[in-house]
Amino acid sequence: MVARYELIADELREEILSGAYPVGSQLPSEAELAGRFRAARGTVRQAVAVLVAEGLVGSRQGARRIVLGAARSQSFAELHSFAQWARAGGYRFGGQVIEQRRRRASAAESARLGGGEVLEVLRVRTLEDEPVLVERTVYAGWVASVVERLPADCESVTEALYDTIGLVFAYGEHLIDAVSAGVHDARLLGVRRGSPLLRQRRTTTTHEGRPVETSDDRYRAGSVAFSIRNSIGANPLVRQAIDLRSRG
Amino acid sequence: MVARYELIADELREEILSGAYPVGSQLPSEAELAGRFRAARGTVRQAVAVLVAEGLVGSRQGARRIVLGAARSQSFAELHSFAQWARAGGYRFGGQVIEQRRRRASAAESARLGGGEVLEVLRVRTLEDEPVLVERTVYAGWVASVVERLPADCESVTEALYDTIGLVFAYGEHLIDAVSAGVHDARLLGVRRGSPLLRQRRTTTTHEGRPVETSDDRYRAGSVAFSIRNSIGANPLVRQAIDLRSRG
Repeated sequence: MVARYELIADELREEILSGAYPVGSQLPSEAELAGRFRAARGTVRQAVAVLVAEGLVGSRQGARRIVLGAARSQSFAELHSFAQWARAGGYRFGGQVIEQRRRRASAAESARLGGGEVLEVLRVRTLEDEPVLVERTVYAGWVASVVERLPADCESVTEALYDTIGLVFAYGEHLIDAVSAGVHDARLLGVRRGSPLLRQRRTTTTHEGRPVETSDDRYRAGSVAFSIRNSIGANPLVRQAIDLRSRG
Repeated sequence: MVARYELIADELREEILSGAYPVGSQLPSEAELAGRFRAARGTVRQAVAVLVAEGLVGSRQGARRIVLGAARSQSFAELHSFAQWARAGGYRFGGQVIEQRRRRASAAESARLGGGEVLEVLRVRTLEDEPVLVERTVYAGWVASVVERLPADCESVTEALYDTIGLVFAYGEHLIDAVSAGVHDARLLGVRRGSPLLRQRRTTTTHEGRPVETSDDRYRAGSVAFSIRNSIGANPLVRQAIDLRSRG
């Protein structure tokens, strides 16, 4: 169920991104927005709080807020699904399972996915016919049999899971860093060993917080970047040291 | 001015992060929270919307919401300031200006900072006495003279700008990818040429949306990672292709 304030936030976001409210312009006041959407002021305030949290609009200047951003944002589905993302960008894309196997969850995977048997899948994804991404995804036991039955060149696992069992990915945690390509990654991506890769490790859950998968995704350098907008009011981005103390 | 709902969100966030509401537990209902904080339900709803946007709590299950996250989050200041971040983590840290010069803004910098003269500063930052970060920061003309007068080993530029002219960084845009170390970066960081670096390009503005600086920061691989939590209701993270169409 989508709340009323989310619908209003969606509409305002769309208007900001389309340029109806240019960067530096003033958003209408809460009272005006409440009138326009025939909604309570509290509901409008909630919608605006979402846009503030996203960094699209700034803090209050008198009764109004300033529009700060107009850059394209991405839906969660488009971020999560390589196929949806590539399709939205108008790219040729593909994917191929290289290996898959059932095994017991490791301790770390048990903590993230809930233990028991898991399904590990190694996939290579292409953009414009070049390999750009190696995905090592570990699926929780409860979705393993569905994923196992997908064709090896399944375009979109996300869409297939939605179509077959109505699964919606709703929450994610992402850890982004840079690593060197090992022998295996280098061969799969057609780069030299030691080349830089952009790594995204993620764990994704359903709306109810049920873990679906945990993945180690490695992009060839120069293929993909991640962008984030943050603000003093809402900072989703965290910098973490990688076991510095254990070095040297 | 901090709004009431932000204070309530801060308090609830603190409780979630401290484990007072463990992952999987239910947050009190809006009515209960309104009673506890002696606040209107609309205000409480707004505070909860902030936590939903941050992915700390999930969507509603009946009258209640489930706590999804307990991982440590970071303030904008702590993300932005290397010194504040390193200090909070208990690390030994340092910084040194290698070069700085005034010059005309490039076209790209003009678009981001507003043109005219800018100040470019090359700094190396250390953690636990090892060089981990090369920063190439371009400051807008209006802060250039203040930055120029800071000592070359100034621990925290962010804090110095706050102390001298009351400047508060409030909004940021970040682009994160992986690159190879060139000759210069390799020497500054003590790594081999071609080694992977985690690059963070950012532009930061004041509360009023006035641009302060744009920076190209490169971390030695294995020193730092960025983490982000997102949700179907709020996705601050965007994946972008890097001019794939111009390749091959």
